[in-house]
Amino acid sequence: MKIIVVGARGDIGQAACQALGARHELIEVGRSYGAFRIDMTDRTSIEKMYADAGPVDAVVAAAGDVHFAPLEDQTEESILRGLHQKVMGQINLVLAGMNAIREGGSFTLTTGIVNRDPIRTGTAAATANGAIEGFVRSAAIELPRRLRVNAVSPGLLEASAPRYGAWFPGHIPVSSRRVGQAYVKCVERAITGLVVTVD
Amino acid sequence: MKIIVVGARGDIGQAACQALGARHELIEVGRSYGAFRIDMTDRTSIEKMYADAGPVDAVVAAAGDVHFAPLEDQTEESILRGLHQKVMGQINLVLAGMNAIREGGSFTLTTGIVNRDPIRTGTAAATANGAIEGFVRSAAIELPRRLRVNAVSPGLLEASAPRYGAWFPGHIPVSSRRVGQAYVKCVERAITGLVVTVD
Repeated sequence: MKIIVVGARGDIGQAACQALGARHELIEVGRSYGAFRIDMTDRTSIEKMYADAGPVDAVVAAAGDVHFAPLEDQTEESILRGLHQKVMGQINLVLAGMNAIREGGSFTLTTGIVNRDPIRTGTAAATANGAIEGFVRSAAIELPRRLRVNAVSPGLLEASAPRYGAWFPGHIPVSSRRVGQAYVKCVERAITGLVVTVD
Repeated sequence: MKIIVVGARGDIGQAACQALGARHELIEVGRSYGAFRIDMTDRTSIEKMYADAGPVDAVVAAAGDVHFAPLEDQTEESILRGLHQKVMGQINLVLAGMNAIREGGSFTLTTGIVNRDPIRTGTAAATANGAIEGFVRSAAIELPRRLRVNAVSPGLLEASAPRYGAWFPGHIPVSSRRVGQAYVKCVERAITGLVVTVD
């Protein structure tokens, strides 16, 4: 398969690429690197990516900013940032891609652990994750042309633990290998509308 | 208790008011009716409501617009409308209220069935519902002063079925009495971080 991976060089994106790269042709996409550089909040730049890439079989989205801060320091703006960047960014990839990718193709979005296993400072991220999961469950029954959509919700990756582990006391980080296999499951199996957790 | 009910005259708001009104003092709030008229997307109008109402024990939010349309007709703007109106509107009530309502008080937000039991045209609503549920689970562990936050996720109400039932084939609408009791549970019990479903 030919697969676009948005956010390919983040910790999660690298895990997805390593697992998917063995059997598939990957197109790495990022804000500032890769074969195509896109701003996920800009529908035009996404449409240009799809046009330039030509038909693909799958899209993996492992990108999107959210603001971590104590709830008392969160503002309407800081929470909206995650809704615009992470949520609408990933949803834009689906809206713009649903008529661009091949029949029977798939979208795999990325959420994260903090809406099911909350941490202090994580409320904007939990809000964004919940939104993406709601989108996935509903869009799955509305997509045309046998397209599929799922989300991977990984725990903190071992690769990310040196930077962020202190925010997750008691959480046992997950290996990049296990996270990568969740993306393989979403891309290669017939599932749709599922949130695949990696704990 | 003294309880602010935002969206008091909608079908869900009326169900909440009928159940809570027997034992509590209710302050009805709406966009165009009630003791205070607010625009939930305008933090200033919410802050003015809290200042004018004085200390309250609980806030029930049963308001927020979302756009129903087939996925292929949804745009970034139509999905964002729900994120701004329903999601940020209800979250604004918490952010502005967490230092305004009484210690030990509670917020009860409102989602809906379509992110767990999807319908065609419901993807923007499912996205919004998921976001609110993610917010509730995380904000519950971050709120100060023993404040609590929960959400009620009702099925389609019998009272709403004449207008919207055709979109929910096979769904057995729920009574206003059962929906009202879910709000009573969230307001009067010690629970926090929960999504109380009514099916």
